Amino acid sequence: MVSASVSKQMVKFLSNVTKESLLDVQGVVRKTDQKIVSCSQQEVELHVEQAFVVSAAEPVLPLQIEDAARSESSLEEGDGPSIRVNQDTRLDNRVLDLRTPANQAIFRIQMGVCELFRQALQRQGFVEINTPKIIAVASEGGANVFEVTYFKNSAYLAQSPQLYKQMAIAADFEKVYTIGAVFRAEDSNTHRHLTEFVGLDLEMAFHYHYHEVVDVIGQMFNAIFRGLADQYSEEIAAVNKQYPAEPFQFLDPPLRLEFKEGVAMLREAGVETGDEEDLSTPNEKLLGKLVKAKYCTDFYILDKFPLAVRPFYTMPDPQDPRYSNSYDMFMRGEEIISGAQRIHDPKLLAERAALHNVSLDKIKPYVDSFRYGCPPHRPPP
Amino acid sequence: MVSASVSKQMVKFLSNVTKESLLDVQGVVRKTDQKIVSCSQQEVELHVEQAFVVSAAEPVLPLQIEDAARSESSLEEGDGPSIRVNQDTRLDNRVLDLRTPANQAIFRIQMGVCELFRQALQRQGFVEINTPKIIAVASEGGANVFEVTYFKNSAYLAQSPQLYKQMAIAADFEKVYTIGAVFRAEDSNTHRHLTEFVGLDLEMAFHYHYHEVVDVIGQMFNAIFRGLADQYSEEIAAVNKQYPAEPFQFLDPPLRLEFKEGVAMLREAGVETGDEEDLSTPNEKLLGKLVKAKYCTDFYILDKFPLAVRPFYTMPDPQDPRYSNSYDMFMRGEEIISGAQRIHDPKLLAERAALHNVSLDKIKPYVDSFRYGCPPHRPPP
Repeated sequence: MVSASVSKQMVKFLSNVTKESLLDVQGVVRKTDQKIVSCSQQEVELHVEQAFVVSAAEPVLPLQIEDAARSESSLEEGDGPSIRVNQDTRLDNRVLDLRTPANQAIFRIQMGVCELFRQALQRQGFVEINTPKIIAVASEGGANVFEVTYFKNSAYLAQSPQLYKQMAIAADFEKVYTIGAVFRAEDSNTHRHLTEFVGLDLEMAFHYHYHEVVDVIGQMFNAIFRGLADQYSEEIAAVNKQYPAEPFQFLDPPLRLEFKEGVAMLREAGVETGDEEDLSTPNEKLLGKLVKAKYCTDFYILDKFPLAVRPFYTMPDPQDPRYSNSYDMFMRGEEIISGAQRIHDPKLLAERAALHNVSLDKIKPYVDSFRYGCPPHRPPP
Repeated sequence: MVSASVSKQMVKFLSNVTKESLLDVQGVVRKTDQKIVSCSQQEVELHVEQAFVVSAAEPVLPLQIEDAARSESSLEEGDGPSIRVNQDTRLDNRVLDLRTPANQAIFRIQMGVCELFRQALQRQGFVEINTPKIIAVASEGGANVFEVTYFKNSAYLAQSPQLYKQMAIAADFEKVYTIGAVFRAEDSNTHRHLTEFVGLDLEMAFHYHYHEVVDVIGQMFNAIFRGLADQYSEEIAAVNKQYPAEPFQFLDPPLRLEFKEGVAMLREAGVETGDEEDLSTPNEKLLGKLVKAKYCTDFYILDKFPLAVRPFYTMPDPQDPRYSNSYDMFMRGEEIISGAQRIHDPKLLAERAALHNVSLDKIKPYVDSFRYGCPPHRPPP
């Protein structure tokens, strides 16, 4: 923002220009005697000579940018104006809502996350792939799948790039990643459920142990956290101004706990939970708080989930068949990525599928891809 | 590829390992006395001490990699074996087909194109966005749109990110790009028609003239051409080995012709075509050859298309209302990108839509996005 000095004739013209209109302004930038505290450019001001309205906004706007940009903390504390723009007004007028500093910053941070994700993986030889979105069969279970009218037939929208990533590994790509739309027909109204979102996925073959992969993913997250702090500090500050939050803490290397240890921490805090029981959402949140208090990190890895709570294609732990070579990773008590070593032996896969009452007929090309030589691998879906 | 020396006991074991199986091999790398001409590593060979089958392929493969990788020119000239793997066999066994050197290279070149596209635009301050794929109304005309069952309602798959890119410009992003799936319900069996593909799209506001945008796109293509030649020469050579092609030629800055000039070149070559007639596919190809012969370039820009053959939202040429501020770009005689200055004035947009019998009711949020101040802009759809 820059302060502008305007001739008197022009004042009349400019005072009739509607808010949010676009102007072309010609003028001279001059040093100021006194700092202009209310502007981001404090040392200079613009002496306007000519001004043209490029695009005039309508006189009445459906929302005011100042209202949409108001800090949550000032709204809660009641200091200053208390007009809150509701979510429906924002979404009905998204083009105006996106002009707030926080939303401008959020889009740039989203770009940053994707860019840092790609950079971290490309450094390690990953290949970017694109996977099909319209698929012939509801491959992953069949629930929560959108149906598409495909000429005279039906098709479905892919819930994840999972099968295609794995087929890329079977096709000798070794390490792949993909960023793209995924679709879930979940009619739920929580901030964890969207019918469409952008997924960041990776898959890699490993040499000795699936922890090679866990380490690559953990380091990738740290690269993203560091990159955001280094390259996007202005954007993070803009978001914080509207939505105050504590700085994000993480450890290098990232903290890795076994599922058992997490259960022990929860029990110590008074929670009753079974050895082979999955974490409920409240328990995930609580565990996030306990980990933060004990280890000072907002990010951690929970490894070796009970086999019983994971999908049929998850590789059992060779040391203890009650557990599995699978993990979730958490940010501020919410799961942000889930992964496992996948069974790459068609016989074991058929056994495990039968135990889970899953029919493999529908995903024959997937199962077949393990028949012609496939390295052990794992992904986070 | 590396030559390997193996003990006699091991020969028996290894000779029973099926083709395309995965092995872990332990051994010593030794310098050789003579160059091993048949291998990519010609100075060393591997003395195998231990070998483990990690994943055994089935004894009979549905296709042989050597057959799938055979050069088109050797198949045409009939020197060497003449087994051609048909397209249906390839697609039914995609995991094996993708193991050919050409396909491995094609995927890496695809990654390179996206990476170079992003780099060229990020250098100029573009922001990467993601746009919705499931949309509420068949916004762009309604033909060729896939319908999705959306809980108790119907929705559609976006044919392009067009409207969303423009709304991002109206939302003050200035310069945006997006890479993502687009969907076209076209039941055509040509290499130019796919029901799903990955689109690379950009949109930017300009200051004085839409040629600012044409120049940015032209330079972006040159950056991609140069980057591929510099960083992906091995991959291009691998593709050329199977699919021979002449080296790609381009000019810096790129050649820009007006539509009129293209028509004149076609007429000089004996083609009858009207001043305001669109280019047919054969005429596009012919013009590509004429341009290559005259200017030595496989890439060129054709500017100022007749207004009559472009969509309703195209900005008319202020100098000559028979023409428009729109262009196509061509590679080897095929259109690879199409763009135009978009009308950003809601009144003019309504006039042009009425002339084309297009109803604007369905795309109200798009039209409304121009009502609150929107810079002139343009995109290639």
